[in-house]
Amino acid sequence: MDKFMQSAIEEARKGLEEGGIPIGSVLVKNGEIIGRGHNRRVQENDPLAHAEIDCIRNAGRIGRYDDTVLYSTLMPCYLCAGAAVQFGIKRVIVGESGNFEGASVFMKEHGISVTDLNIEECRKMMSNFIKENPEVWNEDIGEQ
Amino acid sequence: MDKFMQSAIEEARKGLEEGGIPIGSVLVKNGEIIGRGHNRRVQENDPLAHAEIDCIRNAGRIGRYDDTVLYSTLMPCYLCAGAAVQFGIKRVIVGESGNFEGASVFMKEHGISVTDLNIEECRKMMSNFIKENPEVWNEDIGEQ
Repeated sequence: MDKFMQSAIEEARKGLEEGGIPIGSVLVKNGEIIGRGHNRRVQENDPLAHAEIDCIRNAGRIGRYDDTVLYSTLMPCYLCAGAAVQFGIKRVIVGESGNFEGASVFMKEHGISVTDLNIEECRKMMSNFIKENPEVWNEDIGEQ
Repeated sequence: MDKFMQSAIEEARKGLEEGGIPIGSVLVKNGEIIGRGHNRRVQENDPLAHAEIDCIRNAGRIGRYDDTVLYSTLMPCYLCAGAAVQFGIKRVIVGESGNFEGASVFMKEHGISVTDLNIEECRKMMSNFIKENPEVWNEDIGEQ
């Protein structure tokens, strides 16, 4: 499997071990990971601590994003897709979109190349979490 | 002037006093402010610490947002507009959009009522900051 997606999955697993939502993300530039993150909504009681937000924040103030690739184990929602559009990220690679359609159309409309690797491990980790914690997941995507 | 916009302006001024970008935001529910925030990109070295993000985070995990109103001294960018769309905020009131067109069309397309109060104080505070700190502003909106 894509080694960067593997790193995003490791982040998702960290989140799960912490009692959080298993979504992980890495930001890649010049073939190297410059930021990692995972969903911390539950851990930090922060409704905006989505995986991609945590990841981009951890990469710091890098200035330009047009040569970065954002990996996420799940298709980004509008919040995270909005970050990608605003900062000019040109490529987003996701582990799956079966559990959440997210904002893929919105990203594509704004010229972002979106690739769905459709990885079974990502799908299962997320569907198991949603089955066991539907209320936490619905809160995460604003559907309470 | 709208008392909630006045509070958003106070937040923007706080940011300016801290050496940051003067954009402020408040989240209102049932006629009361439940969250306040201002842009902290410079202060916290966090590229995602936009005013509206800071504000929504400070409001905590409130669950539903469809009965909230988001005030901002400046038209939200795609990151912050994405948060509003994802969490189902139905009304956004801004101080101005002359210095930044933002993602008003995107929000309207997603059913959000967007009102621009076009307040001179907001316009001037922002235009003065952009004139004096163009590089900080361009970084904030991903246009470095």
